[in-house]
Amino acid sequence: MARNPERRTALLDAAIQVLADEGARGLTFRAVDARADVPTGTSSNYFRDRDQVLSQVADRIFERLAPEPGDFETALLAGPSRPLVLDLMRQIAQRLAAERTCYLGLFELRLEAVRRPELRTQLTKVLRSDLDANIQGHLQAGMPGDADTVRLLYFALTGLLVDHFTVPGLHGDRDLDDLIETVVTRVVPDM
Amino acid sequence: MARNPERRTALLDAAIQVLADEGARGLTFRAVDARADVPTGTSSNYFRDRDQVLSQVADRIFERLAPEPGDFETALLAGPSRPLVLDLMRQIAQRLAAERTCYLGLFELRLEAVRRPELRTQLTKVLRSDLDANIQGHLQAGMPGDADTVRLLYFALTGLLVDHFTVPGLHGDRDLDDLIETVVTRVVPDM
Repeated sequence: MARNPERRTALLDAAIQVLADEGARGLTFRAVDARADVPTGTSSNYFRDRDQVLSQVADRIFERLAPEPGDFETALLAGPSRPLVLDLMRQIAQRLAAERTCYLGLFELRLEAVRRPELRTQLTKVLRSDLDANIQGHLQAGMPGDADTVRLLYFALTGLLVDHFTVPGLHGDRDLDDLIETVVTRVVPDM
Repeated sequence: MARNPERRTALLDAAIQVLADEGARGLTFRAVDARADVPTGTSSNYFRDRDQVLSQVADRIFERLAPEPGDFETALLAGPSRPLVLDLMRQIAQRLAAERTCYLGLFELRLEAVRRPELRTQLTKVLRSDLDANIQGHLQAGMPGDADTVRLLYFALTGLLVDHFTVPGLHGDRDLDDLIETVVTRVVPDM
């Protein structure tokens, strides 16, 4: 296996673009090489097979979607409150909207995971580690609500973003900020 | 265009299976014909092009996911209440889980809609008509909460079902019924 880490990352980012543009079925070594603008055969030096590409793409997507280190701690200086939860949810949504290709790629991965047990295991692992970190962060910061508050915010944000990316006109003049405010106001206790 | 309505419906149902199994990229006239077990060339007598298949699949999915006529009215005899909302949400989730292929096909359509404006318009139309009917039914029945209560239930159910179908182990021992109860209890006012 080839080991240049920048090259590997560039190949994974190309794979995410292929996923978002062509769907999981379009994800082949050849398509990744073409998208990364490298000689045909390069990807096959970096990844054992297509399953390994998919599995590492899952990790890479969460790496790109993660907040900057320290962002959460800085925000918390204001003290835990419902308005702060709203603020953080809006930041998350903006980050995901800016990384639209990643978020759409994640959904392509999810659908592919229905057909591929190995990918399902890997995707469950990264999604759970992300959800657990959010729950822990919320509780340790003394934010209003409990673990199920965070779970419910996560469910609602998924539904909301899927609409935002795939059928943006569905909720008429209600924009992303407005819908997120509705969700937070109704899910998070006021304190 | 050929006009046998049962044949057209059978072709659309085959198209839904192809979507769920192979993704939107796998959806070709040839694949639909093969899945429906009809001679190659049949689909092309029923549909102008692939866009028309996708657009009619969107309608067909909602036809299959719709409750039986009268179900909602019968349930309402018990009088509007939060437990009744819970009951109805569980029925919806069970119906969607039973029509797993349809629900997964709907997500494949959503992702394809990102790439196809014509499909996006059609999908927005059927999703909005479904959401509007749910909001109207809720309000007219005097169920607790308002239009945004229904919108929030819809967002949360989307997130919850996407996990249930694609990464079923994500929420550990919390099953679908349990998670739906959590959502309803926290989103719908008690009355």
